[in-house]
Amino acid sequence: MRSVDENNITETFLSYFGKDTDPRLREVMTSLAKHLHEFAKETELTHEEWQTGLKFLQWTGKITTDERNEFVLLSDVLGLSSLIDIINSSEDGTSSSVLGPFHISGSPPHEMGADLRGDSGGDLVLVEGRILDPDQNPIGGATIDIWQTAPNGLYSSQDEEQDRYNFHALFTTDVDGQYSFTTTRPVSYTVPTDGPVGEILNATGRHPWRPSHLHYIVEADGYRPLVTEVFPDDDPYLDEDTVFGVRSDLVMTYERRLASTFPSSGYALSGQVSEDYLHVAFDVVLSRA
Amino acid sequence: MRSVDENNITETFLSYFGKDTDPRLREVMTSLAKHLHEFAKETELTHEEWQTGLKFLQWTGKITTDERNEFVLLSDVLGLSSLIDIINSSEDGTSSSVLGPFHISGSPPHEMGADLRGDSGGDLVLVEGRILDPDQNPIGGATIDIWQTAPNGLYSSQDEEQDRYNFHALFTTDVDGQYSFTTTRPVSYTVPTDGPVGEILNATGRHPWRPSHLHYIVEADGYRPLVTEVFPDDDPYLDEDTVFGVRSDLVMTYERRLASTFPSSGYALSGQVSEDYLHVAFDVVLSRA
Repeated sequence: MRSVDENNITETFLSYFGKDTDPRLREVMTSLAKHLHEFAKETELTHEEWQTGLKFLQWTGKITTDERNEFVLLSDVLGLSSLIDIINSSEDGTSSSVLGPFHISGSPPHEMGADLRGDSGGDLVLVEGRILDPDQNPIGGATIDIWQTAPNGLYSSQDEEQDRYNFHALFTTDVDGQYSFTTTRPVSYTVPTDGPVGEILNATGRHPWRPSHLHYIVEADGYRPLVTEVFPDDDPYLDEDTVFGVRSDLVMTYERRLASTFPSSGYALSGQVSEDYLHVAFDVVLSRA
Repeated sequence: MRSVDENNITETFLSYFGKDTDPRLREVMTSLAKHLHEFAKETELTHEEWQTGLKFLQWTGKITTDERNEFVLLSDVLGLSSLIDIINSSEDGTSSSVLGPFHISGSPPHEMGADLRGDSGGDLVLVEGRILDPDQNPIGGATIDIWQTAPNGLYSSQDEEQDRYNFHALFTTDVDGQYSFTTTRPVSYTVPTDGPVGEILNATGRHPWRPSHLHYIVEADGYRPLVTEVFPDDDPYLDEDTVFGVRSDLVMTYERRLASTFPSSGYALSGQVSEDYLHVAFDVVLSRA
């Protein structure tokens, strides 16, 4: 095409594909180019705005390290990460939600009923539930990888004061599919705002907060792995999670209960609880692989 | 929104804007999010593909330096850079075309009729034309910043063997609006293929070639600056410029002429030419500011 214009540039782009191009790659690149071109045309993007965009991407590249991935954060605050979760969610299982950047592998195995709070302070929370198949039958041998913020709002990987696996635990269900543990109430926190993503949030009048949540990765043989989060229904940021992670089936009531109702057995803290606590019940349904 | 799904995520994104957000920023970000979300939905992008995309951007960031901007190159091969040129082109002037990454400021002023080829070899080309307003009146005092490849296919900024301003020149028109110079015929060349952009070109079966061209930046008081290129009509890559820079009004015939027809005055080489040469006439029309 020796006369590229606004109307034929996308078609010209498509005509460049080699005939042996992988069909899926062709499909993705076609959609990408189409939407990129439409974006530029629809906004009548100026050279100066285009330059601003390029400089933004350069800055994003520059600030990204093995420990901090600003491209992932950008994808998060643009809603792309959550949309990918939603698109790839199963229809008959619990909703998935963002993995986030703070997961570390190798969480230490714990017995059911273990306590993760120790002497960290914060509200005591008792979490329990079942891992189920789509027909509501319990799944035995499922692993549940749990991680969350400490009361100071930081994950252990962000905080030199915490041990590596503080507030990280791995549970394995018995034939009854049950799991249970006690911990501290996770707290709301902000995504990092000292880089290009913070600049976008600031310029568009958005706050950087996420509602508090417990992270779960649940896996079992024969089922699709599930990455998800549980949110308390009284969090002030529930309706405006800056990374769009909230789904209605992941919002649970943190029910306040009297100390005297704490289970007398089955928990590491059984017989030792003299404070009121919060009770959360969260069943997870895994789709078949 | 505590129940974000595929159908409401874009709307949720839009609801996050602060009310004092700059209207143009809001417009651009709205279009960006809309198309980004549509892209993900249309392709049903998987987690693995999303990760591949993020790694691609990280690599692009890593390879980008002050001398090499892989984000610009990515924009170029996706057709975005050319589309921005087209969108912002004036309707009554010569088409604009990509600036490219090889322009350097401070080109040395030359007299009209100067020779840029020197002893570099390659086909001798005589370039002449006029700088005109939309009513075809000559524009005096217009500056024409010219740059091009040496016969080895490299710009001086890419080649340690060349002086900094080799094949770079600045001309200023007299009241007649005329310009003229001799040079070597620019050659076709490839964009850099040793990075992520090269990987895309390779995976989609595309070649990395650009048709040969002379770069122009033309500026005059009271007129819109014009960044453009001139292409010869016999270049093999004219119909598939990998950066989509070709416009029909920028394709000129490089007419072969006998040595005896070389102008006997007005050129640095007048009286010294004993070889056949190529003649290119290229008038530039500037839009009013």
